[in-house]
Parts: sequence; structure tokens; C-alpha cells
Amino acid sequence: MPSVNEVLTSKFCATRLRSVEICRPLAIEDYVIQAMEDASPPKWHLAHTSWFFETFLLRPYLPGYQLFNGNYEYLFNSYYNGIGAQFPRAKRGTLSRPTVAEVQDYRRHVDDGMGLLLGRELNEELTFRIILGLHHEQQHQELMLTDLKYNLGHNPLFPAYRELENSPQVSPLVPLEFRAFSGGIKEIGHAPPEARNFVFDNESPRHRVFVSDYQIANRVVTNGEYLAFIENGGYEAAALWMSDAWSLISAAEGFKQPLYWIQRDDGWFEYTLSGLQPLVLNNPVTHVSGYEADAYARWSGARLPTEQEWEYAAANFNMTEGNFYESAALHPMPASASSTDQFFGDVWEWTSSSYGPYPGFRPFAGQLGEYNGKFMANQLVLRGGSCVTSADHIRPSYRNFFYPKDRWQFSGIRLAKN
Amino acid sequence: MPSVNEVLTSKFCATRLRSVEICRPLAIEDYVIQAMEDASPPKWHLAHTSWFFETFLLRPYLPGYQLFNGNYEYLFNSYYNGIGAQFPRAKRGTLSRPTVAEVQDYRRHVDDGMGLLLGRELNEELTFRIILGLHHEQQHQELMLTDLKYNLGHNPLFPAYRELENSPQVSPLVPLEFRAFSGGIKEIGHAPPEARNFVFDNESPRHRVFVSDYQIANRVVTNGEYLAFIENGGYEAAALWMSDAWSLISAAEGFKQPLYWIQRDDGWFEYTLSGLQPLVLNNPVTHVSGYEADAYARWSGARLPTEQEWEYAAANFNMTEGNFYESAALHPMPASASSTDQFFGDVWEWTSSSYGPYPGFRPFAGQLGEYNGKFMANQLVLRGGSCVTSADHIRPSYRNFFYPKDRWQFSGIRLAKN
Amino acid sequence: MPSVNEVLTSKFCATRLRSVEICRPLAIEDYVIQAMEDASPPKWHLAHTSWFFETFLLRPYLPGYQLFNGNYEYLFNSYYNGIGAQFPRAKRGTLSRPTVAEVQDYRRHVDDGMGLLLGRELNEELTFRIILGLHHEQQHQELMLTDLKYNLGHNPLFPAYRELENSPQVSPLVPLEFRAFSGGIKEIGHAPPEARNFVFDNESPRHRVFVSDYQIANRVVTNGEYLAFIENGGYEAAALWMSDAWSLISAAEGFKQPLYWIQRDDGWFEYTLSGLQPLVLNNPVTHVSGYEADAYARWSGARLPTEQEWEYAAANFNMTEGNFYESAALHPMPASASSTDQFFGDVWEWTSSSYGPYPGFRPFAGQLGEYNGKFMANQLVLRGGSCVTSADHIRPSYRNFFYPKDRWQFSGIRLAKN
Amino acid sequence: MPSVNEVLTSKFCATRLRSVEICRPLAIEDYVIQAMEDASPPKWHLAHTSWFFETFLLRPYLPGYQLFNGNYEYLFNSYYNGIGAQFPRAKRGTLSRPTVAEVQDYRRHVDDGMGLLLGRELNEELTFRIILGLHHEQQHQELMLTDLKYNLGHNPLFPAYRELENSPQVSPLVPLEFRAFSGGIKEIGHAPPEARNFVFDNESPRHRVFVSDYQIANRVVTNGEYLAFIENGGYEAAALWMSDAWSLISAAEGFKQPLYWIQRDDGWFEYTLSGLQPLVLNNPVTHVSGYEADAYARWSGARLPTEQEWEYAAANFNMTEGNFYESAALHPMPASASSTDQFFGDVWEWTSSSYGPYPGFRPFAGQLGEYNGKFMANQLVLRGGSCVTSADHIRPSYRNFFYPKDRWQFSGIRLAKN
Repeated sequence: MPSVNEVLTSKFCATRLRSVEICRPLAIEDYVIQAMEDASPPKWHLAHTSWFFETFLLRPYLPGYQLFNGNYEYLFNSYYNGIGAQFPRAKRGTLSRPTVAEVQDYRRHVDDGMGLLLGRELNEELTFRIILGLHHEQQHQELMLTDLKYNLGHNPLFPAYRELENSPQVSPLVPLEFRAFSGGIKEIGHAPPEARNFVFDNESPRHRVFVSDYQIANRVVTNGEYLAFIENGGYEAAALWMSDAWSLISAAEGFKQPLYWIQRDDGWFEYTLSGLQPLVLNNPVTHVSGYEADAYARWSGARLPTEQEWEYAAANFNMTEGNFYESAALHPMPASASSTDQFFGDVWEWTSSSYGPYPGFRPFAGQLGEYNGKFMANQLVLRGGSCVTSADHIRPSYRNFFYPKDRWQFSGIRLAKN
Repeated sequence: MPSVNEVLTSKFCATRLRSVEICRPLAIEDYVIQAMEDASPPKWHLAHTSWFFETFLLRPYLPGYQLFNGNYEYLFNSYYNGIGAQFPRAKRGTLSRPTVAEVQDYRRHVDDGMGLLLGRELNEELTFRIILGLHHEQQHQELMLTDLKYNLGHNPLFPAYRELENSPQVSPLVPLEFRAFSGGIKEIGHAPPEARNFVFDNESPRHRVFVSDYQIANRVVTNGEYLAFIENGGYEAAALWMSDAWSLISAAEGFKQPLYWIQRDDGWFEYTLSGLQPLVLNNPVTHVSGYEADAYARWSGARLPTEQEWEYAAANFNMTEGNFYESAALHPMPASASSTDQFFGDVWEWTSSSYGPYPGFRPFAGQLGEYNGKFMANQLVLRGGSCVTSADHIRPSYRNFFYPKDRWQFSGIRLAKN
Repeated sequence: MPSVNEVLTSKFCATRLRSVEICRPLAIEDYVIQAMEDASPPKWHLAHTSWFFETFLLRPYLPGYQLFNGNYEYLFNSYYNGIGAQFPRAKRGTLSRPTVAEVQDYRRHVDDGMGLLLGRELNEELTFRIILGLHHEQQHQELMLTDLKYNLGHNPLFPAYRELENSPQVSPLVPLEFRAFSGGIKEIGHAPPEARNFVFDNESPRHRVFVSDYQIANRVVTNGEYLAFIENGGYEAAALWMSDAWSLISAAEGFKQPLYWIQRDDGWFEYTLSGLQPLVLNNPVTHVSGYEADAYARWSGARLPTEQEWEYAAANFNMTEGNFYESAALHPMPASASSTDQFFGDVWEWTSSSYGPYPGFRPFAGQLGEYNGKFMANQLVLRGGSCVTSADHIRPSYRNFFYPKDRWQFSGIRLAKN
Repeated sequence: MPSVNEVLTSKFCATRLRSVEICRPLAIEDYVIQAMEDASPPKWHLAHTSWFFETFLLRPYLPGYQLFNGNYEYLFNSYYNGIGAQFPRAKRGTLSRPTVAEVQDYRRHVDDGMGLLLGRELNEELTFRIILGLHHEQQHQELMLTDLKYNLGHNPLFPAYRELENSPQVSPLVPLEFRAFSGGIKEIGHAPPEARNFVFDNESPRHRVFVSDYQIANRVVTNGEYLAFIENGGYEAAALWMSDAWSLISAAEGFKQPLYWIQRDDGWFEYTLSGLQPLVLNNPVTHVSGYEADAYARWSGARLPTEQEWEYAAANFNMTEGNFYESAALHPMPASASSTDQFFGDVWEWTSSSYGPYPGFRPFAGQLGEYNGKFMANQLVLRGGSCVTSADHIRPSYRNFFYPKDRWQFSGIRLAKN
């Protein structure tokens, strides 16, 4: 049986390698740009994930470790006030240096240090931090792809991140059905994180909630269904929208369709990581804001699920069959008749639940307490992972969170009812 | 026994009169100004509350009713898209016309119409709308006072709304204690509104929730306690604040104390409706944002209560003893030893609960559905009423809601713990 | 022959009275509002003009003078950094206090002080400052009317400042002709200011310029002529506009007609100080920006005059026949056949000249140096006075100045050519 | 004697090559970024200058020319509304594609086309357009260097564009003296452009102006002199600044030193194209706004020259000795005792003259009329070229123009007096 050191070393190498592989199709120029504040350059992600290991592992725990460059503490700190000041997020795309080659050197330097550390005795705290660093890197792998999509997709040339491997097959539409769940006291959340059974602090503690009887859809909403909402005047009907949402979509910079949809004379198109493609009606709708998800649900006579309803329902299904990063589609695919109700993969599913602490929540100790806890305001919970999430990164209890206005993630809609 | 018509007529007259009385101390100039978007001019409140009766009662239900002025539909519509377009909220303070006298004429015109309507047979819908209109007017009475406070309090002359009736007595401080409540399934919320037993749609339906064991403070936080937080560096300690909060207070336009606190060479002062006064340490702290309430709670080793915990605890106490508008202090007062734990009156208490629909929520029918429902995004629930709330307006199930950044309401802090 | 003291006292009384008379038609509410940063409330103008006398005459020169209110130094300082900090200009309309009555008391207090000062011996500096204060007050009288027009004209009720005294007669249109002037060295500007022959510092010194042969129109451009420009697509033709102008009019908040023009189903209307009126085609076009004046001139195959060309041409005409404040029209009127080429009164005429110092310019001494000099950047010169200028305030050498984007003044267009 | 075709071909090759050579020291990443709206990426400059030849020469004049990529018309149009819509200027740095290699292919494609055109008979219009295209490319060569400086200089790593070739020698300071010129009628400007004697439209026509007696400095202001202004409290003295300037420097985002000056514990440093260097006191001050130039001049008891004064004085000196791009310093150098009064090269010299049309100005015909004419609003004239201007690009009559707030050009200060 492999030792903890061997297991972690193997996982470390595989995870770090994936970040590099995601960048393989890129031109150097693609590493640099940032088309909006949220969509950081790939170069920044590559450096920041290394900074994370350097800051939280190598500096405190590897004797004699030499910093690669003292300025990087400032340049690649994302948001840890406990570590120090941060280069302004909105300006990450204005930095041509360090170059991609220098960032790759930085990665190697950190990997070398981590190699030494992984050869030493690993106590519980070290083990925890290494695994956290790997989950952190997986999160940024997903962000690299969503940010890349934004940055390339806002270029009028609509360059593809990579060529389509096979043309989308016309899948038959799985009829929309609602599964009934009876209410009562349920347990949701996860036991607190341990080294061997990693979860984020925000998924804990496991706790009881009271849930009424409810029904939840057997798949997510499709492009075709969402198009009906548009054609029915959904974006013009104030009564369907939250007040803040209506202000947003009615403004001069407002919008009337999902982020990557484009209407041309010859029909609707959707920008994908394989370039601009005709809209596939049976594919899940994606890149909608929480506001749009909410308005669509209201229009359809349903509502969004709470995160408790979602988790309780999802716990019945097998995560392993989802359309994750590993399936290489990099785009949500239609639910299949044999599916596990599409709870995992494809699209992050907006819930109606505000992102807040579970009863008895304790953030990670020390500076790492800033990881999740300080974002528990103004955001909504999304569940289930997406087509660009690593398969071994997700759990039924996993809580992702974005502002209800956000659209650049692979976010979609699952309906619920009473 | 008085008839429904007599009861409603009497209530109508009393409520409408109070709006006028609140304005009695004002100079004409005070009716006009708006020092920020949220703080509407008194003139606007007087007109809008009349518009509400005109729009939802007189136009549809009083045969032969003549509009006072056709332009007022646009000028005094607050946010009802179902009725039509609205004059921009941020510009209400740029309108000198209609004059105060014209607005008073408008009120009389509407009152005359309502007098006729109140003499007719009142079916359930009419009765409901009349009562809703009165509760609506009570809400605007409170807003008139909070908005006036903002508008006068941002004038460098610090004019008083009215002179202090009696000097604040030095009250002994009630020691802070936590009352324990055992968890389990609780019922909260209110049965759906009926004509005779008015509640807002957002308080319904009554429903079950699961609550863990918890403790809740026997009074709200005082100025003295909050001052200790400031002096302890609370506003400089990033670790105490939500990320969005830290951005806000660290910005060029940030802040380092409650809204109306002013530090001078000779100590701390607080602007009150009676002008600038030395800070009274045993008074409740007020005009803090939800972010400040949350940071203070974290600093003190506690947390904010959920709205469920608050409501379940508050249901044990008598509302009638609170410091409401009727006590004429127009400022929060120290908890008294014999108090009912200060749950009602004094200050609206921030909870950690996002303002959302209760399971099975149904908004008011028709255009009135915009009253509460469309604000169920991005806001937090506050409970208990304040020193400027009418005593007969509040209930244990009453849900007020503001953005976590808002500070111009009489908002304060009650602590809770596990 | 009256003494200097008598002359100044008489002028002082008359000028101060006019400010009050301009406000006579106002409701109290009208004194308070400010619909944009540039359009200060009448109350502020009444106080600021008094502050000017208090600050530059009573405080330094009247022994024993008691300030009316120490806070007013800050509240009513417009822009004199040499005096101290200033209450933010954009927020003048958020102050309900001092009330109108209190401002009137302030005026009386200052007038009383000035009465004492005017009874004392007046040296050259005092005489200069008194006359400057009166010219300053005349400037604010004009601003009161332009600001009032803006504030009332942006109310959807379009209230009139005062009722129309007589309906506009249909005047025949004076045919547009160009008068030729031969070039050479010309003298423009005015000898430096003296007590007895007041001019502003920016009009001096008189100096030589070289001017080529040029032609200048015999009247200003009319509404009818400007309407032809609009109907010919003037606002859609990028080639007619300066780059900065095109950005401005093409923006989301852009415009396609003069400030107070409104197109309705039944034709074009223009808001005037007598309320909304059908557009009179033979009236001069007014409330156009310098950008619009420039684009119109280009469209018509002409150009704007330089200020040197304007002044040299205007010096041939009699100022006294113009349509000034005293004619009580408060609106530009058609040129008459017997006119003096409309150089004075009616509308301020945009020139193509940047507002800058004349060769050898010396600003007023001391703190009063801020009066004109510091605005010599980014603005254009306008000439000739308008229908709301006092007749004895204007001179051929008088230089007014606004940003090329400004439109709330009574500004119009005179054409020139080579 | 070489033919016109040979002369133009040789000039074309040399000029196009220089653009590529300027980029030689860059990493691919450096080609992409844009740290503020004005500072376009080198990649954009390389493409836009090719677009200029394609749009104004190859499309209309080369039979059978095939567009390289139809989207480039939109992507690389800078500001020609007559050609069509433009990709937003502020977002040029958000485009990773076309890549640098693709832009280089585009350049070759255009160069091939131009090679064919240069082999054909060239009429006057074609000759004019080719020469204009070359002057246009020279302007962008200068901009590439100023924009690069901005983009690299705002990276906290302060990367050098290229290594310093030789350390700055300590030059003795040429004492500041004023040369006297007697006034009268002068001729300035240039005869209208002809094919063989290129000037920009804005330099014409040559015309008479009247100038008073004046004095003008024998060199530009140095870092040491400007430092004295700073240390004397220049940035805190409102009386020295135009009102618009004071608002700018006093704002939250204001500044208190030239753009690239940085004060550290061990003294003042200046970012140069060779990286961060200790401030050299005898070097000319550069990267100051027109506002700063004006305030400095006022502080020193002088003023800025008008463009007429500048041109008349400069016409006495030999342009060829200046510190231009060819001297390879890429930084302004001290005036030398034997100098030609430093009128040419080193720094662009702010004048007090607004950029406007000369009397009788006629813009280039057709779409090229947008080249210069539409910017004749809100800008000031600068004269003399800089250390990054090509030596054969400048003339005494050459008029550069920037907003008075602009600082990213190599702009400096020459004093004048009466």
C-alpha cells in the first residue's frame, strides 16, 4: 500500500500537470489578456496556484526555501489580507511580465520545493494544506477554462480554444419530469474536514434542516426551453424579475439573452470553447445569471430549489457518470435517458439559497480562514459541478457561490416545485 | 359595536393625520430636499401615499372619481412597473413643483374620495386594500423620519427636527446576558393575510423550521460597547469583515464609525432628530449597516441571530412596552431592567437571514404583487421595529429588509450564540 | 453732482433689489432645488452674493462687523481656495437650511453693514471692490434665471417662471447677410480696470492682433435655420462634429436637439421661462453647446467668428438697443430690420476662441485673483450678453466663458466666413 | 537621379522596417497589453499602420487586391467614422488574436501589395497618400515607445524596454537665460502640403500674426528645477493652478509629481525605457501635463510660450542636432553649451495655445479629413519633437496636440516672458 507521501506526491504531480495541459492549446498572447475584472489571465492562474503552495507550505514549512521572486507575494496574492496587500485584480491583464516562460520557471521552482517537502514527514496540518492546495488548483483549472472562454469569446474573431473533436450528435430530449420527495427533518452538509477525507470548511458541519414536501426536475433546462422563454417576451416582462434584476437588464448595458448567445440573420449561435456554433436546442442552457434562472423558473410556473432540497435529492445519484472535464466535451451535453438525472457535471445549478455559514460553521484556522468564509454575503449557492470541473473535485455537499448577476461560469437551471 | 366602515374610517383618519403631524415641525424648504437617492423628500412621501390610495382604490373602485392631476401617476409612482413608468427615484429632490400646498390639496382630494368610498359597501378586496394602504402609509411615516434625519443630518448646520423634550437621563446599564432556547422543529411566520387580521404577504405562510439549540442576548448592543470595538481597531481588522464589507469601508468613500457619529476634539457626538448631542454610552448603537453588525458580532465572539431564532425568542415577549413612535423619544433608549428584552421598538435588529420567500409564499395578487416580492434578492431581514415605528404596525412575524450596506435606518445589533 | 458715496449707494441698492425682484415669482420650494451641478438654487445665489460683500468688504474693512453666521463662510464660498474650503457644489440643492427667510435676514444683515461702509470714506481699493461686488451680483442675477430655467424646465410639469406678458408676434425674418471687414492690425480688449470705468481683469490689457479679411453675419441663427440642420441629418453626420462632440452626442446620454426643444406628435415645442411654447421659427436658436454651434456652422458652409473678429465688428454698434433683462422678454427675440445686427443681448454668441489670458494679463490682486484667471483652461469665449443680462453689465470687450459642452446658458450662434 | 518610385520605395522599406525594429526587444507578452486607454498595445500599432495603407491605398488603388482578413477593417480602424465602426479603443488590450505572428503576416501581405503599387505609375494623389502613410507610421513609432513606456512602467517589476547603453554622464547645467525677440507682424505656419514637400494639413496655411515683444528660454526646464517646485509646495498651492487642474490633482486619484517619478527612502527615482533609474537632476523634466507645465511656469514667475512665439523663435535654429530617436538615448538629455537651444528633440514643449485651425485651414480631402481636423477642441499645441521622434519627421511648423491633462508623452516645459 502506498504511503501518504507517495499518494500525495502522485496526486500533486497529476494535478499540477493538468494546469499546464489546459494551457497547451494556447498562444502566448492568450495567456496575458483579461477581458473583464472577473476573467483573470491564464498566466495569473498558473502563477497564483504556485504562490499558494509557496505561501502556505514552502515559506512556513520548508527549511531553507528561497523565494523565487520577492515581488510575487504582492503580484500573485489573490485576496488574502492576512498575507498582505494585493495587486489590483482588475489590472491583472495589464502585466506582460513575468512572461509565460518566467511563470513556468516559477512553477518549476515551486514544484521542486514541494518535491522536497513531499519527501519529509507530513503531519496532519501539512497533509491538510497540501490537499487544500490541490483542491485550490482544481478550482483554478475550472476558472482558467471559464475565464479563457470569456476572454476568447469577447474577441470579434471568436477564436476557438481547441477544435471540436466530434460534431454534436442530435440527442433525443429526455422529457421533463418532476421527482417527488417527502419532507421532514433531513441531514445535509458534511462532517468537518479531515486530512483523509477532504471537504471545504463551508460544507460543514453536517446538520439538520426541516424540508417540506417538494418535487425536483429530472434534468436541467435546455436551450430550446429557454428560447421559448425569450420568444415569449420573458426579458420584457417586469413581473418575472426581481427588482435588482430588472434594473440590471433594463440598463443601457443590459442584456436579453444568455451570455454567449448571438442572434444572426440565419438563426441563433452560441460561442463555445470550440468557437461559434449553431445553437443546439437539446443542450442545457448555460451562462445564465441567477437572476435569469429565477425569472425563467417563475415564467415556467416553478421555482429554483433550495440548496437543501438539491443536496438531499442529489445524494441518491451516482456522481461518476457526469459530464466533467475528463469527458473532454468542455460543453454541457443533453441529459441521457439512462442518466443519473444530470445532478453532477454539465452545469452548475443555481439554487435559491444565499451563501451563508451552516449552523456551527468554523472557518479554516489562521490566514486560510479567508478562503471561503469572508464571501458569505450577497452570493447564492450553486451545486453539482460542470463540464469543466474535475470529476474528483465534486461532492453532493460541495457549495459553489457566485453573485446572482454573474454569468461567465457554466451555470444553468434546474427547476423545483412544492 | 362599530361597523367595519366606521372602524376603517376612524383608522383612515387617524393614520392620514399622523403623516401631516410628522411634518408639522418642518420648514417648507425641508419638504423638498433629498440628500441621497434613498432619502426621499417629505413632500414626495405625502404625495406618494396619496397616490397609493388613488391608484389602487379610487381609480378602480370609486365611480366617477376625477384624477387630481394626470401627471401624478408618473411623478408619484414609486416602483410599480405594472402601473407604468416612474419618475427617476434619484431625482425626487430636484422637483419644486407640485408645491407643498399643492400636495396638501392632493391629499385632501384623495381623502375626500376615500371618504366617499368608505361610505359604500366594502367587500373583502376593498377592505384588504384599504388596510394595506394604511399599513403602507405607516411604513412611509417611518421613512419620512429616517429620511428627514438623513437630509437634515447631512447639513453642516445640523438643524434639529424638533427640540429635545427632556434631557436624556443616565440609565444604569442592564448587564448583557444570553437567554438559552432549546432547538427542534419550530413554527414561524404568520397565517396568510385576511382582511381582519392584516399581515404582509412576506410573513406567510406559517411553516416549520428546524433550529439548533441557541442563545440570544437580553438586549441590544450599546454605544459604549460599540465604541470599545472602534477603539480596539475593529474597522482596521480585515479578518472581522466580509469581503464585500471590507471593500466598502476601505474605499475612498469608506467609513469608520456609525452613520451619525462625529468625533470632535471634545469627544464623540451623535446627530439625532433633536440635533447634535454628546454620545450617550448606554443608548443602543444605531444606524449601523448589516456589515458592521456582523463584524461587531464576530469581534465580540458571537454572531447575529437568524430570523427564525429571533422570531421564536421574541414571541415570548410583550410588544406593547417598546419604545415606538408614540413614546415621542424618536431615538433608541437604554433597555430597562424591567424590560421585555428590548425585542420591540428602539432599533431594527439585523439578522443573518437573507430576505427570501417562505416555503409556499404567494405574493399579493395583481399589481400589488410588486409590493414585497420583487425585493427578495440581495437584502437581509431586520426585525422588531424601531423608535420611529408606529406601535400598531409591528408584529413578531414582521419582516423588514434592507441591503447589508444600508445605514440610514434606525438599525441596531442583537447578539446570538450557539 | 452726487458724491461717489451717493452714486455707489444708489447703485448698490438698485442692484441688490433686483436680485430679490427676480425671485418674486417663486414659490419657496423653487428656491431650494438644483437639478444638475451647474444649476444652483436661487437661495444659494442670494446667500453667495451676500457672502461676497461680507468676505471681501465687511470682514476686512468694516470695523466691528459681526459675522451673521460663522458657518456661512464654508457654506456660501463658491470657489475661493484662498478663503478656505467650500461646501461641495453638487450638493447645494441638498440643503434646506438656512431657510429662505434666514437667507433674507442674512442679506439684510449684509446690506446694513454695507450701508455703514458706504457712509465712510472710500479709497480706491474699496471703491473697486464695491463695484466688483455689484458686477458679481449682476452675473449671479443672470445665473439665477438660467439656473431657474434649468430647474423648472426639467420638471415634467414644465411650470412657468412667470406668465407670458404678450404673445410672441410673428416677426418677418431679416435676411441673412454677411458684412465684410478688411483685415490688418486691430486693437481689442480694454484698458486695465479703474474704479470709475469698471472692466474685468480678463478684458485687459488692450492689445494688438492681426486679423485677416473676414465677413460676419448680420444676425444670429434662427430656430428655423437650425431645424433645417436637424432635418438634414446634422446630428447623424459624424463628419460635421469635433471628435469630442461626436462622443458626447453619440453616448447613451447623448442628445439630438437644443436643450429645451421637445418634439411631440403635434410639432416642436420649446420650454421657455413662460412655460412650454410652440417653437417660434424666427426666434434665435438658443441653449446650444459650442459643439453644436461649431457643427451647425460647418454644415452651413461657414464657421464661428474668433473673439477678435467679433469684438472688432461689434464695436461699430450701439449696445443700448439690445434685448436685455430690462426688456422683460426673458427670451431671445427675432432680429429687427432696424436692428444693430443683434450683437448685444438676445443670446451669448459662441466664438471659436479658447478662453485664455490676453498678452500681459494681470489677474485681480490677492484672493480676488481667483475670480476669472483660474478658469482659463478648456473653455471657449462667448460674447455679447443675452436676454437675461442686465443692460449696464455688458461691453464690446466683455468675455464670458463656458465649456464647449455647456448648454444651459442662453447661448446662440453667429456665423462668420473668410 | 532616382525616380519618384525608387525614392518612395526606399523610404517605404526603411520606415516599415523601423516599426519592426522598435519591437525587437519585446517579449510576445509585451505586444498585447494596454495599461490605460491611451496606451495601445504594440501589436495594435503594427496592425493599424498596415490597415492605413490597406484602407487608403490598396483597397482603392491596387486592382485585384485581396483583403487579408475582412474583420480587420473593424478591429484596426482607429477613429475614421467615414470608414465605419471601430472596435472600442479601451479594449484593445483584451484581444489576444490576431497573434503577433498573424499581425506580422498581415504586415507582409500589405507590404507585398504596396510593393506592387510602388511599381506602378504614381499620380499626385497616390504619392501624397503614400507619404502620408509613412508620416502616419512615424507617428505610431513614437506612440509605440510612449505607450510601451506606460505599459512597462506601470508594472511593479519595472522591466526595462532595453538595457542602458551607457551610463548617463554628469553634464554641467547650461545656465537658464532668456532670449529677447521683438514683436510685430510675423508669418508662421507652412505653405499647403504638396507631394514633394509634405506637411500636415494643420500646419497650413502660412499666415500673419501679431506678436508682442517677448523673451523665451534658452533650454527646457530640468528635473532639478522641477524638484525645487515640488519641495517648495508647488502641488499644494491652489493659487498656482488652473481650476480644472486643481480638481484633478486634488482628487482621490490625484498626483503630486511627474508621471514616472517615484520617491523612495533613498531618494527620487525615475522610470525610463532602461528601467528605474536615480533621478538625474540636469536632465529635462518630462512626462508632465500641460497643467503642471502651466503651474510650474507661474511659480517661476514666467509663463508658457504661445505656439506663434515658439515657432518664430525656433525657426532660427538647426533641427538636425536634436536628441531624436536616432540618437538612441530614448530619454531626454541635458542641453549642451553648444546646443541649438534645445528647440528640437528631447521633449515636446507645451505651449499655451489651444489647438485650432489656422485662418483658412482646409482639412485633407475626403475620409482623410478626419486625420487632424476633428481634434481641434479641448487640446493644446506642443512643439519640437522628442527623444523618440524620428529626426526626419519634425519641422518648425509641426503641431502636436494633447489634452492639458495628458502626461504619458515625452512632454516638457520651456518658459517664456514678456
